[in-house]
Amino acid sequence: MKQPRSTTTVHAARQGAPSTGLWLIGARGSVATTAVVGLLALRAGIVPATGCVTSRPPLDSAPLVAWDDIVVGGHDIVGTPLEKRAEMLVDSGVIPHHVLEAVRGNLPEIESELRTGYHPATHTGTLADAAARLAADLSDFRDRHRLDRVVVVNVSSTEAPVPALPEHDDLDALTRALAVPGHRPLPPSSLCAYAAFQAGCAFVDFTPSTGARLPALARLAEQQGVPFAGSDGKTGETLLRTVLAPMFTARALRVRSWAGVNLLGGGDGATLADPEKVRSKLSSKAGVLPGLLGEEVTQPLHIDNVPDLGDHKTSWDHVSFEGFLGVRMTMQLTWGGVDSTLAAPLILDLARLAAAAHADGQRGAVRELGFFFKDPIGTGEHSLFEQQRALTAWAAALGTPGPRD
Amino acid sequence: MKQPRSTTTVHAARQGAPSTGLWLIGARGSVATTAVVGLLALRAGIVPATGCVTSRPPLDSAPLVAWDDIVVGGHDIVGTPLEKRAEMLVDSGVIPHHVLEAVRGNLPEIESELRTGYHPATHTGTLADAAARLAADLSDFRDRHRLDRVVVVNVSSTEAPVPALPEHDDLDALTRALAVPGHRPLPPSSLCAYAAFQAGCAFVDFTPSTGARLPALARLAEQQGVPFAGSDGKTGETLLRTVLAPMFTARALRVRSWAGVNLLGGGDGATLADPEKVRSKLSSKAGVLPGLLGEEVTQPLHIDNVPDLGDHKTSWDHVSFEGFLGVRMTMQLTWGGVDSTLAAPLILDLARLAAAAHADGQRGAVRELGFFFKDPIGTGEHSLFEQQRALTAWAAALGTPGPRD
Amino acid sequence: MKQPRSTTTVHAARQGAPSTGLWLIGARGSVATTAVVGLLALRAGIVPATGCVTSRPPLDSAPLVAWDDIVVGGHDIVGTPLEKRAEMLVDSGVIPHHVLEAVRGNLPEIESELRTGYHPATHTGTLADAAARLAADLSDFRDRHRLDRVVVVNVSSTEAPVPALPEHDDLDALTRALAVPGHRPLPPSSLCAYAAFQAGCAFVDFTPSTGARLPALARLAEQQGVPFAGSDGKTGETLLRTVLAPMFTARALRVRSWAGVNLLGGGDGATLADPEKVRSKLSSKAGVLPGLLGEEVTQPLHIDNVPDLGDHKTSWDHVSFEGFLGVRMTMQLTWGGVDSTLAAPLILDLARLAAAAHADGQRGAVRELGFFFKDPIGTGEHSLFEQQRALTAWAAALGTPGPRD
Amino acid sequence: MKQPRSTTTVHAARQGAPSTGLWLIGARGSVATTAVVGLLALRAGIVPATGCVTSRPPLDSAPLVAWDDIVVGGHDIVGTPLEKRAEMLVDSGVIPHHVLEAVRGNLPEIESELRTGYHPATHTGTLADAAARLAADLSDFRDRHRLDRVVVVNVSSTEAPVPALPEHDDLDALTRALAVPGHRPLPPSSLCAYAAFQAGCAFVDFTPSTGARLPALARLAEQQGVPFAGSDGKTGETLLRTVLAPMFTARALRVRSWAGVNLLGGGDGATLADPEKVRSKLSSKAGVLPGLLGEEVTQPLHIDNVPDLGDHKTSWDHVSFEGFLGVRMTMQLTWGGVDSTLAAPLILDLARLAAAAHADGQRGAVRELGFFFKDPIGTGEHSLFEQQRALTAWAAALGTPGPRD
Repeated sequence: MKQPRSTTTVHAARQGAPSTGLWLIGARGSVATTAVVGLLALRAGIVPATGCVTSRPPLDSAPLVAWDDIVVGGHDIVGTPLEKRAEMLVDSGVIPHHVLEAVRGNLPEIESELRTGYHPATHTGTLADAAARLAADLSDFRDRHRLDRVVVVNVSSTEAPVPALPEHDDLDALTRALAVPGHRPLPPSSLCAYAAFQAGCAFVDFTPSTGARLPALARLAEQQGVPFAGSDGKTGETLLRTVLAPMFTARALRVRSWAGVNLLGGGDGATLADPEKVRSKLSSKAGVLPGLLGEEVTQPLHIDNVPDLGDHKTSWDHVSFEGFLGVRMTMQLTWGGVDSTLAAPLILDLARLAAAAHADGQRGAVRELGFFFKDPIGTGEHSLFEQQRALTAWAAALGTPGPRD
Repeated sequence: MKQPRSTTTVHAARQGAPSTGLWLIGARGSVATTAVVGLLALRAGIVPATGCVTSRPPLDSAPLVAWDDIVVGGHDIVGTPLEKRAEMLVDSGVIPHHVLEAVRGNLPEIESELRTGYHPATHTGTLADAAARLAADLSDFRDRHRLDRVVVVNVSSTEAPVPALPEHDDLDALTRALAVPGHRPLPPSSLCAYAAFQAGCAFVDFTPSTGARLPALARLAEQQGVPFAGSDGKTGETLLRTVLAPMFTARALRVRSWAGVNLLGGGDGATLADPEKVRSKLSSKAGVLPGLLGEEVTQPLHIDNVPDLGDHKTSWDHVSFEGFLGVRMTMQLTWGGVDSTLAAPLILDLARLAAAAHADGQRGAVRELGFFFKDPIGTGEHSLFEQQRALTAWAAALGTPGPRD
Repeated sequence: MKQPRSTTTVHAARQGAPSTGLWLIGARGSVATTAVVGLLALRAGIVPATGCVTSRPPLDSAPLVAWDDIVVGGHDIVGTPLEKRAEMLVDSGVIPHHVLEAVRGNLPEIESELRTGYHPATHTGTLADAAARLAADLSDFRDRHRLDRVVVVNVSSTEAPVPALPEHDDLDALTRALAVPGHRPLPPSSLCAYAAFQAGCAFVDFTPSTGARLPALARLAEQQGVPFAGSDGKTGETLLRTVLAPMFTARALRVRSWAGVNLLGGGDGATLADPEKVRSKLSSKAGVLPGLLGEEVTQPLHIDNVPDLGDHKTSWDHVSFEGFLGVRMTMQLTWGGVDSTLAAPLILDLARLAAAAHADGQRGAVRELGFFFKDPIGTGEHSLFEQQRALTAWAAALGTPGPRD
Repeated sequence: MKQPRSTTTVHAARQGAPSTGLWLIGARGSVATTAVVGLLALRAGIVPATGCVTSRPPLDSAPLVAWDDIVVGGHDIVGTPLEKRAEMLVDSGVIPHHVLEAVRGNLPEIESELRTGYHPATHTGTLADAAARLAADLSDFRDRHRLDRVVVVNVSSTEAPVPALPEHDDLDALTRALAVPGHRPLPPSSLCAYAAFQAGCAFVDFTPSTGARLPALARLAEQQGVPFAGSDGKTGETLLRTVLAPMFTARALRVRSWAGVNLLGGGDGATLADPEKVRSKLSSKAGVLPGLLGEEVTQPLHIDNVPDLGDHKTSWDHVSFEGFLGVRMTMQLTWGGVDSTLAAPLILDLARLAAAAHADGQRGAVRELGFFFKDPIGTGEHSLFEQQRALTAWAAALGTPGPRD
């Protein structure tokens, strides 16, 4: 639903002081650190914006905040200094040595904006208390920097799926439940979304965790007039599947099985070695093929923790398909990507686009941002090119008055 | 340019006797034989139309000739009986044994429609004589079967590129040149296109040979009121490239090199082992990436004749690309396709679509059929999904009155 | 331990009537049927002995039974006629159509030698009863055909691992336990080994099931003077690993991780989709790398049931290794094999070699046959070339008098 | 032929000052620089000797010179400082940053031992003059450092094949020909071998250039009492082939075709982009398969210059093979290696082993070093494991008196 536009336009914002905040949940992780170092490098003009879709036509003509006008802060539950993490990423080939050297001097300023996140194991009060504290951090950040708006992006570790509760469907019930001592009706990702919405911030979930995907939270976003998007950034195997599966369909070839294996190390590998947590990721990935192929196919899928690979994620796909007269053929695909390298520029894109949606008065799920996600909220469209078309049209309409369906 | 529609509509044609002819140049080759056996199997209802894009939404609602209403004939310069060739294709895994057994009884009827093609080494008269003879074969075929129209499809062996001649640009000069004894201004594929146009037939080039891609021939098609399309069917490595290259672009990833190797045997492998003939194929394939990526990339490309592989064509692609902060990543892809299996259903699709274009009054290059080709005539668009969109829109407008740009 | 040689030499056997029996457990399965059809085709001289290592130098000069002198029988728990199964294997591309046609007439003779195997779900008596019945089938087969000896080869479905029992270590205790009503101390594969040994037959386990790998059964083989070998034929991914892992070691390169995934359909795929049964296979495969590399490595390994692939087994391996100065490199490998095609000739080889061992007076585990197995009984040597060297030397000594260590 | 052992034993050499010289032809190239930096790092004890086969059992117990006792010098025709080249190798991921930092201080000492090599385009005198100058550089190096011996290793750019000349077969004729002004009967690699032998140095050719592979040069080596070895280090695709081809043979599987493509950048990529020079490499690689498989196979092979890959060499192999009953199967293999990383430790190994051969009194071609080469001089054995066995036996006999065949 199109809302009255904010009187503070993005364009006006660029005239004054920095105006959009990017608040990272999991701010000391690999993806966040790469995004932060990259943002500083973009500002310094020492790297091209490779991987940032908002920096090339046609999105570069949308009314988006400039790199210079983004202020970064965030929550994390670990205390590794950003600089230390960045050095680790240099060692593992994610951040080039000369890039870190060029921006190292700007890291302390961002370091000073990082706050302790919510951790279920150490928090002692009610979840309402926790949410209030997180929301206060966001408001304080916005006020201190006189930001027009803040986009909260979740790049923390993947959580296990959570069992459904009645209060997930009812905002009032949820609010009451959060105040009950000892009751924990929301996982951390959803508590962050709750706090973000309470503080009037947009929320983007780059992970397959529950995040804002609960009816009560969607209601809260609508009520607070803020947009949200997600979930689970598509950066590798699934990205490929969302162009290749439509190719088979376009040519009337019948896919019979599509097997996949993902090898990765680093923190993500360790997280996904947990049989509960990996379920969230597998579930997010598994919905893609049936949606695109129009039928169920055999699709064994594995995610293996291979510590020595670090951030160098490798996936292998084997597709068996049937052509004319029932003849069988195969395709194989190996993707050798650097995970944080693929994710980080999309974080920056999403910060700009979610801020623009907010400025444009959009509230609730922004399904046109599905282009970025494995499990796009608000739409069942998985084809990358259909998603790109939708995103492009959406961005072209940003800042233009009138109704939006 | 939209032309007045023929009074013989496709719909009317379905009412009467079989009405569209499919005339195959290279009618005894693997692709043609697979298409013929497949067409008979489709008519018999013993196989699904896997691989035929005109049999599934949305193209299946376009006004296209039914399988039952297609009559097949063709030219070839070799004399291998169709049945013998079909048996060879059973042995090499292209045609299932039970399919051939089910349609074997219908092959003699098609065999009786095959005529000796033009062969430069054995032809003794002028090219004008040869063209007249070929055109007469087409007219005779159309008349005997009272066909509404005939679509000529070239699936003969790839020719070497031909040097440019002044008469290629001028229809009158070409006509005079063809009549000069001992002068051979057109390669066989182009002579076939000339004869097709003279006989009022649509022409489709599924090979990278010169075919109709000469200004004088385009002029003749316009003059005769017939459509044509081509060239070089995209069925494997290039098909994949036309969805994957746009993926890199959509995500602002910079491709630095894209290496490819194609291994194939069979007649196609033997033809392409000729260093002159392979140039046509390599040239057709090499234009795709720069068009899609917006810049030149290092793209070594090989086609190797590996006789023991027969029709089982294997290609390997290695893509090196650059992401955020200049980090290098790679993708590898292996396609294991059965060449004739991939091509044959597209031949049937093209026969239907070119016939519909003809019925619709279209003349000259039909660029919306670029979806099928590596080197689409009349357009520089290589993205499969853009091509699909154009084809879908074009098919939806078939049979509707009004201007066409 | 070298035993006095049998007075019935292999050479003498070739002079008279057919003399060696090959008794297949799982005789109606894909591997057995392919072996049987292949044996008949070899006898008919219509195929070369590709894949049979005993047909080429140096093993072809060992004193081995001729193809003509092997008589086939077997047990199975299903009733699918051999001919029907062979037709299914023609459809799935394992047996060429012309090969089946050429040997079809000989199948009934072998069909008549197949007996109902032991099935725990339908057997009602003690295991001692079952063993006696199986042994009687073997003796009867040997007697009716006046065979010098019989080799029992297990190619039935993989069983789940069995819990250790005290009677597994003590032949007397085992014999008593088998006679206890309602007690089932042995899985089917081991019961077959027990029966084979009781009947004086050699036993080869081509599966990862328990088979003869129990101290009590080894004792029985020694006592009965019969040899045995196993287990789990190496035909694909593991075969490759046993030449590639030694290559890394030979070059002092340090393997850090070796991931693998196996896709297969058919009966084997269905069996291994059982989470219990697949444990036997995974365990058999997992011991190879640490043995060859001299240290533990991260080695995620998956076996997926992909029904549409049928017998066309595909494995992918990804090796990450470290070279000079700690630099990381990778190797990837895809094996596209037809499982029964790879296994069947080895069954014939093992029948000949185990018969020769028996003729040579060898008893107990024949570790020199480790060349054929993923989990070689009696040795920790996994390197294919070391195994080949040991096999060659062993075969060269066959038939020569003197001590054997 | 075994010669009387030198009275200066390797063992004695270790007692005194540094005693073996490693003289690199192409000393400023990537392989040489990596070897030099690596040698310094090994001496400093900051890296394990991964990739060095002489540092692990069983070769580590042979009488080989210690890392501390190797003095490095060399020729090159370019002037890039070693330190600059090492920094480039850090940037391209071949040398870790911390390794260079740790050894940087020792590079000037080696830099001071580098001399200008022979370059046909700039040399103006006779080749005899050039050889005398090169030999003088070697003698001077040996004398200044009081080295017991010097091993010259060619790691310069690959040369084109050279046409045969009569003087290549006759040492006296060659000596005369070298003195003819304006006559150039030897390519640079062979001139270096000539100079090395004249100076009493061992020579190893790690490239596919002609080097010592001329009868006249072999005669000279014999006469001077020095050993030589080569040629063309096997570090990737060919290394894999020499374990995989024997695997197919060991299992009686029939390889029908083996296609390969190599992608590489860097100096090597640029050199091999020259259609003449690449012929030497292709010829060296192409001899391997027929030798191992016992028959000719279709083996298309490409080497492509892909500048953006730098030292990250990627090869893809596709093997089509035939199994039981003629069924076709395939194997694919991708090797992602860092070329200099794979070659450099072998240079150090060869320096040690060639020095030991020299100390042992061996002269002429040392065929037992074939383990290291694609085109082993003096033997047609290509199987890596046979080569390993021969090398191991040879090394075990080093330093033991007695005849050697």
